[in-house]
Amino acid sequence: MITIRGRVRFNETDTMGVVYHPNYLHWFEMARVEYLRACGVSLNDLMDEGILFPIADVQMHYMNSCKFDDEYEVQVIMSAFNKAKMDFACKIYRVRDGALAVEGTCRNVFTDKNGRVIRLTPQWFEKINKVYKEEKVE
Amino acid sequence: MITIRGRVRFNETDTMGVVYHPNYLHWFEMARVEYLRACGVSLNDLMDEGILFPIADVQMHYMNSCKFDDEYEVQVIMSAFNKAKMDFACKIYRVRDGALAVEGTCRNVFTDKNGRVIRLTPQWFEKINKVYKEEKVE
Amino acid sequence: MITIRGRVRFNETDTMGVVYHPNYLHWFEMARVEYLRACGVSLNDLMDEGILFPIADVQMHYMNSCKFDDEYEVQVIMSAFNKAKMDFACKIYRVRDGALAVEGTCRNVFTDKNGRVIRLTPQWFEKINKVYKEEKVE
Amino acid sequence: MITIRGRVRFNETDTMGVVYHPNYLHWFEMARVEYLRACGVSLNDLMDEGILFPIADVQMHYMNSCKFDDEYEVQVIMSAFNKAKMDFACKIYRVRDGALAVEGTCRNVFTDKNGRVIRLTPQWFEKINKVYKEEKVE
Repeated sequence: MITIRGRVRFNETDTMGVVYHPNYLHWFEMARVEYLRACGVSLNDLMDEGILFPIADVQMHYMNSCKFDDEYEVQVIMSAFNKAKMDFACKIYRVRDGALAVEGTCRNVFTDKNGRVIRLTPQWFEKINKVYKEEKVE
Repeated sequence: MITIRGRVRFNETDTMGVVYHPNYLHWFEMARVEYLRACGVSLNDLMDEGILFPIADVQMHYMNSCKFDDEYEVQVIMSAFNKAKMDFACKIYRVRDGALAVEGTCRNVFTDKNGRVIRLTPQWFEKINKVYKEEKVE
Repeated sequence: MITIRGRVRFNETDTMGVVYHPNYLHWFEMARVEYLRACGVSLNDLMDEGILFPIADVQMHYMNSCKFDDEYEVQVIMSAFNKAKMDFACKIYRVRDGALAVEGTCRNVFTDKNGRVIRLTPQWFEKINKVYKEEKVE
Repeated sequence: MITIRGRVRFNETDTMGVVYHPNYLHWFEMARVEYLRACGVSLNDLMDEGILFPIADVQMHYMNSCKFDDEYEVQVIMSAFNKAKMDFACKIYRVRDGALAVEGTCRNVFTDKNGRVIRLTPQWFEKINKVYKEEKVE
């Protein structure tokens, strides 16, 4: 599990006084970026090789809202992985009271620059799979 | 069913050259706003009365991506409705080739300004229910 | 002068209940896109040829704010143009009362994909210059 | 001077492969939030008292672009201050090579919830003025 923390930015809020609901997906993505960095995978390197990783599915369940300047914590795990896809699950907590704000899952697939689905090459697969399998054991 | 059309804005794209995945939720919301306007319901009027309508759940399935300046069409229906919640379903099409880009559902609940779940008052309920029931029959 | 109209989207607002100040720049850009389209210039075609058009300077003066669902009108003119740059000026009006919301200027330069400043090729220069000169005369 | 650091998020980029130009304003704002926090001023407290701080003017000069995952540093100073307004100036650096990416200024004014310009009350004025005057001396 990878954990990141941040503070709600002004631009992330909306006229209802809380974080605008799609913006929680930005934090989920930031946590995936850090998860992959911990695997030794840089998304810029992937893109430089012509490997894209678009989102195929997203589910978000909103329980409690965060406000401007609230500190939040995102916990992310990889729930499934093979050469064709990565599934992630996240929980986002409001730090001031520990409330679970959002729970979500998403699936990334791998494609080339023309959007054709591809299989991850062994070089990258092994890096991610090593961390994924260790986490499974825990 | 309510249908809206728009063009992909520069600010909606990302470094992969396509619409950033959470931004499709903006279009889904724009279609809901028009759906409710067609019911005679202004979200500003609701907010002025202290009625909020936060998102409780979102599911999005991404099939084809839209690029900068692509024209898109959003089709939205209300799939369930009662005094406590509105469920919507949307399909987003890429106009240039008719491809289905995204399919999604979401649930809005009604709350007061403190986030407490409330029941929609008859005045608003009847406006929405009239359109909802007519659509069900079709 | 090119004029576009739109309505404030939920995602464009912030916790102060108005449009978040950088988001007016999205509308300014949308108007520039339409200005260039009226010249017969597609930004996708430019990018396909490896011509980028980053912003070098922006100035915005905020007079009156727009709220969710407000209709707005953007009026844009090209105030200077040569093979190295395009200067635009915009006025954004709130339609409900005609108030001037924002007045701004910006400069686009032309670069290649590595960020090196380039001169616009005659093919594109002539298209834009034709409209620019006609507007100057008016 | 207050300094903050961050990394470019995926959602901050655009189809030209760099940070979308209005998004640098989000970082400028984050630095202002930290500047005021260092003065002992919470923007949530100001808003709770009905004091808003809309942007009246912005100028941004873009020199070098940041890409996804680039680390950046924002340096912000308060360049003018009185009971009616705060002027800030920022420099944004790209950490990997120290390049100056963006230089900008902005002015916040103080208003009530109806948008009427107000004077900052002594309680808040003194907190900010103390830091402002110390910085002037340096």
